[in-house]
Amino acid sequence: MDFKDVITGRRSVNFFDPQKPVSDDLLKEMVELAALAPSSFNLQPWSLVVVKDAERKKSLQKLAWDQPKVSEAPVILVVLADRSAWRPGHPVLEHNFEEMVAYGRLTADQRQWFEEACMSLYGESIEKQQAFAVKNTAFFAMALMLAAKHLGLDTHPMDGFDHQAVRKLFNVPDQYWIPLLLAVGYFKSDEKLLPPKWRKSFEQIVVEF
Amino acid sequence: MDFKDVITGRRSVNFFDPQKPVSDDLLKEMVELAALAPSSFNLQPWSLVVVKDAERKKSLQKLAWDQPKVSEAPVILVVLADRSAWRPGHPVLEHNFEEMVAYGRLTADQRQWFEEACMSLYGESIEKQQAFAVKNTAFFAMALMLAAKHLGLDTHPMDGFDHQAVRKLFNVPDQYWIPLLLAVGYFKSDEKLLPPKWRKSFEQIVVEF
Repeated sequence: MDFKDVITGRRSVNFFDPQKPVSDDLLKEMVELAALAPSSFNLQPWSLVVVKDAERKKSLQKLAWDQPKVSEAPVILVVLADRSAWRPGHPVLEHNFEEMVAYGRLTADQRQWFEEACMSLYGESIEKQQAFAVKNTAFFAMALMLAAKHLGLDTHPMDGFDHQAVRKLFNVPDQYWIPLLLAVGYFKSDEKLLPPKWRKSFEQIVVEF
Repeated sequence: MDFKDVITGRRSVNFFDPQKPVSDDLLKEMVELAALAPSSFNLQPWSLVVVKDAERKKSLQKLAWDQPKVSEAPVILVVLADRSAWRPGHPVLEHNFEEMVAYGRLTADQRQWFEEACMSLYGESIEKQQAFAVKNTAFFAMALMLAAKHLGLDTHPMDGFDHQAVRKLFNVPDQYWIPLLLAVGYFKSDEKLLPPKWRKSFEQIVVEF
């Protein structure tokens, strides 16, 4: 599908057809396309809890403003942002460091520099830890929404949930933030979409101080 | 350009051709395509400082690990995330509320519910304020990178900069976080790209606790 059609055609849909499941193959294709998103030092601090089971969706719906789409969408992705993925010893960081050295992007004796850079950019305050985890995971989540559209799927990114209660329901460790839930499925064709919401123009986006 | 080619072809390039400028029209098209990204209550907490002037780029380069691409890329976007865009009185919020009422998405007497929802989801802690601003702005930034590729441009998202010093250089008010600098231009064709970095597989991304 042409990129322009994907980005203009992507809508946050409120009504999913509960009769149309998303195949495991299609979900995998969507996730792996989205995982091509870039990330800080390639640390990829994103993970997903995949919720398909009707009872689990029902429990989640209760914690998400009781929105029917949580149960109606065949798949809900609980999107997780790992606030500790910049720490030495984290398996993804260690894998990356090895790869960077193998490709000559860094030399082995830059290890200390690398650790200090990660600490100063991503570790030294709550603000920085949160920004690191959420930024990179949101790159991935935006790519998920677009990859879904490309594959004929619809999505809805959701903020309206009780963060602590959802954390508890899925036993999510403290190192993760939950930036969003993402409903994935097929738009229910007998419902009507409202017109797209307004957007800021180029002139409204560009600022000087 | 096909979406799959865009997402697989997007690379963070380190070398930009300083002789190939980005036209104002193309930059505007890129930004307005990206601005179709979704955001929490459509609050669009993203802004850009557009840096093209050689002297300004030079000053910015000094604050960004002296990376040559900051000067070589014809455009550097200082990407800003507004941590206050959920507050009553913010012009974008007020515009959205009016539009939501006009389209029947909310009724005027849901104003108090709306304000309380914004406060509880985005306002009640530093973590939540930061996550709100950075998440939505990162949706926009990911869309910027993909829209750029679709339009034949290359990009590089940068973390390696002194946050406070860049804030000072551009007089960025405290309400904004700077999640990234984005270099935009054309890959310098006499340079070679390293192979794409590894990515986590579907099985590595999906977790249960």
